[in-house]
Amino acid sequence: MTAVEQPETPLGHGNMRRKEDARFIRGRGTYVDDVTLPGMLHGAVLRSPYAHARIVSIDTSAAQAHPKVRAVITGETLAGLNLAWMPTLSHDVQAVLATDKVRFQGQEVAFVVAEDRYSARDALELIDVDYEALPPVIDARQALAEDAPVIRDDLEGRTDNHIFDWESGDAAATDDVFASAEVVAAQDMLYPRVHPAPLETCGAVADMDAVTGKLTVWTTTQAPHAHRTIYALVAGLPEHKIRIISPDIGGGFGNKVGIYPGYVCAVVGSIVTGKPVKWVEDRSENLMSTSFARDYHMHGEIAATKDGRILGLRVNVLADHGAFNGTAQPTKFPAGFFGVFTGSYDLEAAHCSVTGVYTNKAPGGVAYACSFRITEAVYLVERLVDVLAFDLGMDPAELRMKNLLRPEQFPYRSKTGWEYDSGDYPTALRAALDLADYPALRAEQALKRERGEQMGIGVAFFTEAVGAGPRKHMDILGLGMADGAELRVHPTGKAVLRLSCQTQGQGHETTFAQIVGEELGISPDDIDVVHGDTDQTPFGLGTYGSRSTPVSGAAAAVVARKVRERARIVASAMLEVSADDLEWEKGRWFVRGDVEAGRTIQEIALAAHSDLELPEGVEGHLDATCVYNPPNLTYPFGAYVCVVDVDADTGQVTVRRFVAVDDCGVRINPMIVEGQVHGGLADGVGMALMQVMAFDEDGNHLGGSFMDYLLPTSMECPSWELGETVTPSPHHPIGAKGIGESATVGSPAAVVNAVVDALRPFGVRHADMPLTPAAVWSAAQGTPLRTDLAIT
Amino acid sequence: MTAVEQPETPLGHGNMRRKEDARFIRGRGTYVDDVTLPGMLHGAVLRSPYAHARIVSIDTSAAQAHPKVRAVITGETLAGLNLAWMPTLSHDVQAVLATDKVRFQGQEVAFVVAEDRYSARDALELIDVDYEALPPVIDARQALAEDAPVIRDDLEGRTDNHIFDWESGDAAATDDVFASAEVVAAQDMLYPRVHPAPLETCGAVADMDAVTGKLTVWTTTQAPHAHRTIYALVAGLPEHKIRIISPDIGGGFGNKVGIYPGYVCAVVGSIVTGKPVKWVEDRSENLMSTSFARDYHMHGEIAATKDGRILGLRVNVLADHGAFNGTAQPTKFPAGFFGVFTGSYDLEAAHCSVTGVYTNKAPGGVAYACSFRITEAVYLVERLVDVLAFDLGMDPAELRMKNLLRPEQFPYRSKTGWEYDSGDYPTALRAALDLADYPALRAEQALKRERGEQMGIGVAFFTEAVGAGPRKHMDILGLGMADGAELRVHPTGKAVLRLSCQTQGQGHETTFAQIVGEELGISPDDIDVVHGDTDQTPFGLGTYGSRSTPVSGAAAAVVARKVRERARIVASAMLEVSADDLEWEKGRWFVRGDVEAGRTIQEIALAAHSDLELPEGVEGHLDATCVYNPPNLTYPFGAYVCVVDVDADTGQVTVRRFVAVDDCGVRINPMIVEGQVHGGLADGVGMALMQVMAFDEDGNHLGGSFMDYLLPTSMECPSWELGETVTPSPHHPIGAKGIGESATVGSPAAVVNAVVDALRPFGVRHADMPLTPAAVWSAAQGTPLRTDLAIT
Repeated sequence: MTAVEQPETPLGHGNMRRKEDARFIRGRGTYVDDVTLPGMLHGAVLRSPYAHARIVSIDTSAAQAHPKVRAVITGETLAGLNLAWMPTLSHDVQAVLATDKVRFQGQEVAFVVAEDRYSARDALELIDVDYEALPPVIDARQALAEDAPVIRDDLEGRTDNHIFDWESGDAAATDDVFASAEVVAAQDMLYPRVHPAPLETCGAVADMDAVTGKLTVWTTTQAPHAHRTIYALVAGLPEHKIRIISPDIGGGFGNKVGIYPGYVCAVVGSIVTGKPVKWVEDRSENLMSTSFARDYHMHGEIAATKDGRILGLRVNVLADHGAFNGTAQPTKFPAGFFGVFTGSYDLEAAHCSVTGVYTNKAPGGVAYACSFRITEAVYLVERLVDVLAFDLGMDPAELRMKNLLRPEQFPYRSKTGWEYDSGDYPTALRAALDLADYPALRAEQALKRERGEQMGIGVAFFTEAVGAGPRKHMDILGLGMADGAELRVHPTGKAVLRLSCQTQGQGHETTFAQIVGEELGISPDDIDVVHGDTDQTPFGLGTYGSRSTPVSGAAAAVVARKVRERARIVASAMLEVSADDLEWEKGRWFVRGDVEAGRTIQEIALAAHSDLELPEGVEGHLDATCVYNPPNLTYPFGAYVCVVDVDADTGQVTVRRFVAVDDCGVRINPMIVEGQVHGGLADGVGMALMQVMAFDEDGNHLGGSFMDYLLPTSMECPSWELGETVTPSPHHPIGAKGIGESATVGSPAAVVNAVVDALRPFGVRHADMPLTPAAVWSAAQGTPLRTDLAIT
Repeated sequence: MTAVEQPETPLGHGNMRRKEDARFIRGRGTYVDDVTLPGMLHGAVLRSPYAHARIVSIDTSAAQAHPKVRAVITGETLAGLNLAWMPTLSHDVQAVLATDKVRFQGQEVAFVVAEDRYSARDALELIDVDYEALPPVIDARQALAEDAPVIRDDLEGRTDNHIFDWESGDAAATDDVFASAEVVAAQDMLYPRVHPAPLETCGAVADMDAVTGKLTVWTTTQAPHAHRTIYALVAGLPEHKIRIISPDIGGGFGNKVGIYPGYVCAVVGSIVTGKPVKWVEDRSENLMSTSFARDYHMHGEIAATKDGRILGLRVNVLADHGAFNGTAQPTKFPAGFFGVFTGSYDLEAAHCSVTGVYTNKAPGGVAYACSFRITEAVYLVERLVDVLAFDLGMDPAELRMKNLLRPEQFPYRSKTGWEYDSGDYPTALRAALDLADYPALRAEQALKRERGEQMGIGVAFFTEAVGAGPRKHMDILGLGMADGAELRVHPTGKAVLRLSCQTQGQGHETTFAQIVGEELGISPDDIDVVHGDTDQTPFGLGTYGSRSTPVSGAAAAVVARKVRERARIVASAMLEVSADDLEWEKGRWFVRGDVEAGRTIQEIALAAHSDLELPEGVEGHLDATCVYNPPNLTYPFGAYVCVVDVDADTGQVTVRRFVAVDDCGVRINPMIVEGQVHGGLADGVGMALMQVMAFDEDGNHLGGSFMDYLLPTSMECPSWELGETVTPSPHHPIGAKGIGESATVGSPAAVVNAVVDALRPFGVRHADMPLTPAAVWSAAQGTPLRTDLAIT
């Protein structure tokens, strides 16, 4: 369906308009920058102009003398509060404000609190920092060189820039498969450093009440409870005296999971001045210093038989994490999410090793949609399959169909130990090929090639692993991934659902109300969803990695079922029959065999709050809580077909068609699912064709505005053609799998495969993202561009 | 202990300073009038100058033309919104703004919304109401006269001013006892109309968000959830779109249970203008139009043997409820709380009948501390016992001791069907007499009488019935009296307790934290108590009738025990032993027989939120909820001795000493209990000596300021001498009974008994409250004053 239709509110699952849109469309959302408190002050961050330098001295006296400045905070101030260093979510530490050295361009050096934002900015220029420049490490491939400067000399005993090595799969078995394989195709490829670039930048309003000792922080976070606990553990603030409010959030995509120095500075600013302090970064700060993603230098090899049976994968990765090791990488589960690099195929063996290094760039390793490196892994394997098809002269769709996992193999344990829950991959691929009319496309391509026109058809298949937990396998700084939900049904049968997850625009207020509506027969319009406020919601680790529906969605269904069972007891007291004799139909318990004798959930709710006498030991009201610990991840998947036209003379790529068949299990609100897919596909087009955070040799960041770092618009996107298959997750209460990131994961390979396919007449077997006009033109010329470094 | 000592925070029960005082003492509380919202408008109420009049017309045009007026609301406006009439908590209805008639002086007639409070007040004078005066009914004893005007002709079929008759006890058995009794003493007495007069008047800030449809009301209420549900049921507003916030409240005493027209007007004002609207009444409005209490004309008879064995009680009451039948009277439980008029004595039979009538006064029947008419009942029986002692020439303390219920009679079922839970009355009376040194007082009195000085000694004993539910016996508009509690223990072991009750200064934030601290071994400093916000707390019917500790306190203990049991499962997983092998000591589960092998609640809390693997089916975290439905009321009791000096020439009474021995079961924070008793005793002194809401014959209210309606100050109060006995309630989880109102209930009789005792040389057997100098002087002259009516 298209968005212009106006569906009626269903009693549960189904298309309905987003409840939150009423305020968003009218400009009545409340973002962090909309929060204004009496007496509020404004903060601004002084950032390093150097990628690598020693700080000789910081003179703040002139800034402090500014008539509107209330405080100037440096690392020294913070050290006095024991807040100089903060943990990253990967067990690293990061200076809140640099003291000894700056380690990336844009690093935070000082924080000014003033009466208005303009004065705060003006005063930054009055701070005199004496830097002694140091040689920077910008190219990850130079990070482990003998003579490379040691970036993290703040860490005790650190003598190089090595962070970690990890591997996944059976190296010996993989080598054996490769040794005996008929065909081996290898390819180096880069997944460039990109940025989530949410519509809203990061910010915080911190308000420390000196009398009650309560700290309230309105902040752009996808994980309010994790922030609260981390503030408590790290800063020694009492956890019950911290309230994190994450109001309306203008996009996250992983950019708003971690804690940034600016947040801490706002808090310290409020402690120091006794007033609320607002800090909101500008676009250039967001692009320069908040978490990046990708930056993977990958070498992949694929082994196969001559007739195209894929046997094995062998991968080496050099991962550039910047100056501090950021969000959640690698995680415990089997050995980081890159471990799903075996993709959607039936392999004999696979092995992968990843080495992480520090460089003088902003902290990386962020979980930018998607899911902790799955995007890179899917891109790698889907490019490798196309490279193999190139080498074998096979059709890439046919090659995939031949090697996809078969339905009867599920639940499937991958060669790297992942338990895929359910899937019917060939059906999804066939659906995509049918929707695209693949044979007709190939025929059209053949005709065009005869005319010297470059048309490309890219196929990609992906499997995601989303919905982190389970708690025993995953954590953030030791906090387990189980999510809370609370459901209260008011006397009149209206309800409020409180969730630990936090929306950044995904439509949670609608989807989760529909989940509860489906279980209880209460209209989603009568159910409010509350999230994003630690004072109002149960504990949980937030929204990222498409985990809201797999985890919080499951919690919502489970807690609604608990309420339904409580309602059954109340109904049995109302009807004076045994609870065992009651049957449920949507919204109503009735006496088995006498459908007239029943009570609606609304009638039951009123009775549960009334003077009705309940059996001994049965509590009144209709409230319930649940903590959901997922038994496994969920595994959405999909098949994408992209059609491009390439102008080989200018390098211009036009994405003419994009067919996406997604399987995210049961769809609660198909309209919202499709919206999520639309966004992710656009994201993929952007990464494939236009985005890279490039640096010059001094570490100067070359993507500080949307003039340099490009976002796709409707002009660059086709009218998406969507299809679906539905393979419910067997372990999820309602069979849903999560859709938030699927399209971002699957689409870049489809676009790149299409462009490379278009360039086949030029003998192009691979070209690195982003496929800008210059890159495409150069590839066609046989002289591929280095896209990540602007080194002449 | 005295308040100047500074106790350390105990781990549970015990003396500690109130956590809330940090903000109260520094003027950092947030009362309704402190709430200021952007664009907020201000409302003012136009009130009737007549006690009874027909409204011929209302012309608002001049007011509407005022440049700063945004809206003028009349009953007509409300009728359009279906909000013209609102329910009272006694199943009556009250006009929000009068349309046909005004029925008491001060009744709400119109509401002006303006840009500031001053303009709103100014514009009131521009409203032209044409009244046609009607004869008012002011004296309840005239209300049922043939020719009395029918006040509530708005009620269909109403032809007189009769509201209800109810009775309690066995009339025939009582008549038999009286017929054969050796002695019968009878006395008419008045419990005058008084006003709770809280420090903060009533008010509301209403904010209807036109986009989200959410109505937020900051309001002075003791029962936020009841308000929310009533708004939902009556106004048809969706309950999940209503948020009632009751912030810091400056005293309630029953005055802030019901819904007042001003609240509804503020809501309508916000709906009509699209802006937040604040309405805060001034002192004179509060005294004139918000709920009164008492106004009972009582005739009591007591039957006894010559040697002072009390056999029976027979009582008739005429209850003046004003123009609308207000808060919760009579209630279902056995037949209204006046039913405890049998007091603390072992009777053979008792009977009481009460007739309620309408008069042209402000709505009465409020539950002003205490408990729905128990204050009147205790006053009546304790005066009757003294009258009997007078007639028999017996010492009133001895007469009481002879007739008090004995410990072995508990649990005791009274002749009117009340199940007293526990008590040791003689011990309490003896403790009070000992503390007062009663024989020495009587000796002193004898000496003084010889010198012609009037010294009086008053003794009173009381039994209260508090802690409403149980749900099957009690309700407010059909809502049952079960209270919710939610407890979350954060990862670091700090906790938040969410309660449905609402404090008005009783120290809930401290006491309830101590209850949880006692059960879990978490410091009360580490536990935040949240209440007074329907969005943040579970459902329950609020705080009144000393029910917070009996009901919500029980809920707090039960929910903490649930958490302790959850912690046991987690500890068993941590320690890898069976949960059955664990033992609890304060704050810690340890392995039986190996006290070293244990985990503190804080360690358990962190593990419960970590990646610890829990047994199948066990949910993580350490949260729990509870809905507590009390199996019975609790029955605090106490013995009071009051010593007064009376100047018979001027009528001046000086309360020289006041000894109060209270038994409220287990004391959670003795310092807070003593503070509650101090306040209640002062309250009793005020009612006994100085307070009455009087009216002239036209229904003009004569107590519109604190110049007319007097409150006792420290100048009128002695240094209270407190004692205690502790008889735990057997059915309450921690044995607590509630203390909020005890002293208000017990002290008026003690003071009046003392004054009458002082006047014994003048032959005075009874004198009605308030015992003002004029009343005392007149009584001594043998010409008792009528105190309730200023009718010449």
